[in-house]
Amino acid sequence: MIEIFVEPAREDWAKLQERAMFDDSIIEDRVKDIVEKVQKNGDSAIFELSKSIDNVELESLQVSQRELKLSFGTVASDLKDAMEVAMANIWKFHSSQMPKEIDIETTDGVRCIQRAIPIERVGLYIPGGSAPLLSTVLMLALPARVAGCKSITLCTPPRSDGTIAPEILYAASLCGVDNIYKIGGAQAIAAMAYGTESIEKVDKIFGPGNRYVTKAKQMLGLSQVAIDMPAGPSEVMVLADSTSKSNFVASDLLSQVEHGGDSQAILVTNSEVIAKEVQLCVEEQLKELSREVIASKALDNSKIIVIEKESEMIEFANTYASEHLIISMNKPWDVASKITAAGSIFIGNYTPESAGDYASGTNHTLPTAGWAKSFSGVNIDSFVRKVTIQEATKQGLENLGKTITTMAYAEGLTAHAEAVNIRLKEE
Amino acid sequence: MIEIFVEPAREDWAKLQERAMFDDSIIEDRVKDIVEKVQKNGDSAIFELSKSIDNVELESLQVSQRELKLSFGTVASDLKDAMEVAMANIWKFHSSQMPKEIDIETTDGVRCIQRAIPIERVGLYIPGGSAPLLSTVLMLALPARVAGCKSITLCTPPRSDGTIAPEILYAASLCGVDNIYKIGGAQAIAAMAYGTESIEKVDKIFGPGNRYVTKAKQMLGLSQVAIDMPAGPSEVMVLADSTSKSNFVASDLLSQVEHGGDSQAILVTNSEVIAKEVQLCVEEQLKELSREVIASKALDNSKIIVIEKESEMIEFANTYASEHLIISMNKPWDVASKITAAGSIFIGNYTPESAGDYASGTNHTLPTAGWAKSFSGVNIDSFVRKVTIQEATKQGLENLGKTITTMAYAEGLTAHAEAVNIRLKEE
Repeated sequence: MIEIFVEPAREDWAKLQERAMFDDSIIEDRVKDIVEKVQKNGDSAIFELSKSIDNVELESLQVSQRELKLSFGTVASDLKDAMEVAMANIWKFHSSQMPKEIDIETTDGVRCIQRAIPIERVGLYIPGGSAPLLSTVLMLALPARVAGCKSITLCTPPRSDGTIAPEILYAASLCGVDNIYKIGGAQAIAAMAYGTESIEKVDKIFGPGNRYVTKAKQMLGLSQVAIDMPAGPSEVMVLADSTSKSNFVASDLLSQVEHGGDSQAILVTNSEVIAKEVQLCVEEQLKELSREVIASKALDNSKIIVIEKESEMIEFANTYASEHLIISMNKPWDVASKITAAGSIFIGNYTPESAGDYASGTNHTLPTAGWAKSFSGVNIDSFVRKVTIQEATKQGLENLGKTITTMAYAEGLTAHAEAVNIRLKEE
Repeated sequence: MIEIFVEPAREDWAKLQERAMFDDSIIEDRVKDIVEKVQKNGDSAIFELSKSIDNVELESLQVSQRELKLSFGTVASDLKDAMEVAMANIWKFHSSQMPKEIDIETTDGVRCIQRAIPIERVGLYIPGGSAPLLSTVLMLALPARVAGCKSITLCTPPRSDGTIAPEILYAASLCGVDNIYKIGGAQAIAAMAYGTESIEKVDKIFGPGNRYVTKAKQMLGLSQVAIDMPAGPSEVMVLADSTSKSNFVASDLLSQVEHGGDSQAILVTNSEVIAKEVQLCVEEQLKELSREVIASKALDNSKIIVIEKESEMIEFANTYASEHLIISMNKPWDVASKITAAGSIFIGNYTPESAGDYASGTNHTLPTAGWAKSFSGVNIDSFVRKVTIQEATKQGLENLGKTITTMAYAEGLTAHAEAVNIRLKEE
């Protein structure tokens, strides 16, 4: 049963907010070994690793046009329809984020521009698992398309028969992914980071994954390739008062914990009645779930916290910096305006996390483990670089000349000053 | 003498574009050791390391209000004036980048918002060296202020007498830095990443540094703290045609190579006349420089490339992805519109790199070593997180209900579907 903590002392907050953490050093050597093999031996290393790790003997790494087309017939039409609706919303919201060019004059004759240029080659990783994570294909490939990335590569682990789920292939096609490869794990990240005979090196890698994938992204993320953000187990925090509905709140906690045994759901409420009601509703609803075992395990990491003062509830939320934050309170927008750290916020009683996970239009690739204090979730910025451009006229350079040379001399950089002087001396 | 390569074969481009690289594995263990000491022993480790590495016996880590005020009198008034002008331009350009809140309806009854929230606690690293890098203080602290960051911490190595250059202190004061610490190297990065008794843990670390600083940022950058970008030696590429002025171009190449022996300057021109003239001008101007020795060394990494076709010049530039790209050509804006990778672009004959280094208003903290393919230079985005907020009305959730549940079932996540069903069943 999910445990209730009433008015915990401030010094216990950190303990209550602890995430399930694993010691990654155990897998570090293994991941390093995989990465080095792929860097050195390219495709052949990947064929070998697929056999030894995934137990799959692949004929080719890339999904063929034929495989792609064959799969379309097997996707249910209501799922196709659903993907179209989700796609339209994701497209609309991410399009609205496209940065406009900024073009100003800072000093007479000195013009400064900020221009967004799409990253050329992006790589997406879609994890395997018991069911195909088709929504993540939409969440990563559509913003890349909106931003105008030239080439989208997708890697996802093959099933035991060497195929990829048709839903993944359909989603990738729908979103205009250019190349799909049957590669999973750390070897997929290494392949996209370094490039191989058949896989193009990419400029940035996106997407969730298991510990090996995460470790490989972390290992290569600031030395060989850019990555979206550090990743960890998924989590939700719900802020609820007496205007919330306990059965709704319980369903939100459960939809988080079904993700994996290391997921976390935390309810913060100023109502002890709600706390107890939610605790019971969770028990009841849990029995009906297909993933009861996983969810039960994650409930051990989960908590209900009763804090009476609203300002302290908000502080608790900001300290935790939840990936998902649901605000089921009387004045949810007022509370939202005081939130300083969260990945994505869900307002009121009729916005479950699953709305954003699939179809509201926001992105579901979000910072976990408190990284919301430092990172944004995936958005259009993630797929562009903002390049600055400046132009001084001769007059403009005259206007700034003394400023530049004075600072350059103060920094002992005389050549920097000379580059100005030589221009201003010219008749 | 800087070497000229005429119409190099395409297969030689990669070789010509190689940056000066050092093997960082040598210092890895040393940096790891420093980081672990600071994590474990906090302030006392820093006092020890300052003594053993920097040979400075510190009385306190933090610069006192008294030290701060005393230093102001010693900064030359023309330098103060210059900093004010630079500050105004940097403030103006970065203010213009402040993101507007996006607020749209994606489906009837479903509202999606993207809101920029400043990162609360940022840490800035300002390298030491023969002269104080006061401009970098402006380039990092001002955008943090514009963005609205609550707390700005600055670390910079003390001089041998245990003091910080007054110019750095003045610049930090001018920009509203909250706390200044006399700490350099990997220990400064570790202190800001973990926090110590006297130094606040920060959410993101910015700024250039030596190999130890860079290694520490890379080591902690995706596991303990966010960082601005990977760093490497500074570089410039100049694209020039017969309308450029050889002595100007030479002065730009030199103002780059005076940064350090590992800097790189590359001229790409379609004019052999310009190539030869620039080669001579560099030799002449070099003699006048205060940093002739450093510059000479960096000229060994530098090159002049003659490529006749303009489209290939542009391709060469995009493949290199230069930190600074100067376009001294007849139609510089046309060329700029075809640039897909650069940190910052300088247009025409009267915009030397030093204009952007100090005072045009653009940021000088830029991606090096080809990272411009993946990273933006420091800009307002670097100091905020973009948080999404969504709200569905009951009608809105009804409109999207089938889409969400169909996708959730396809992914085997029944609790995700139930969170929608339970809301829609409610009378």
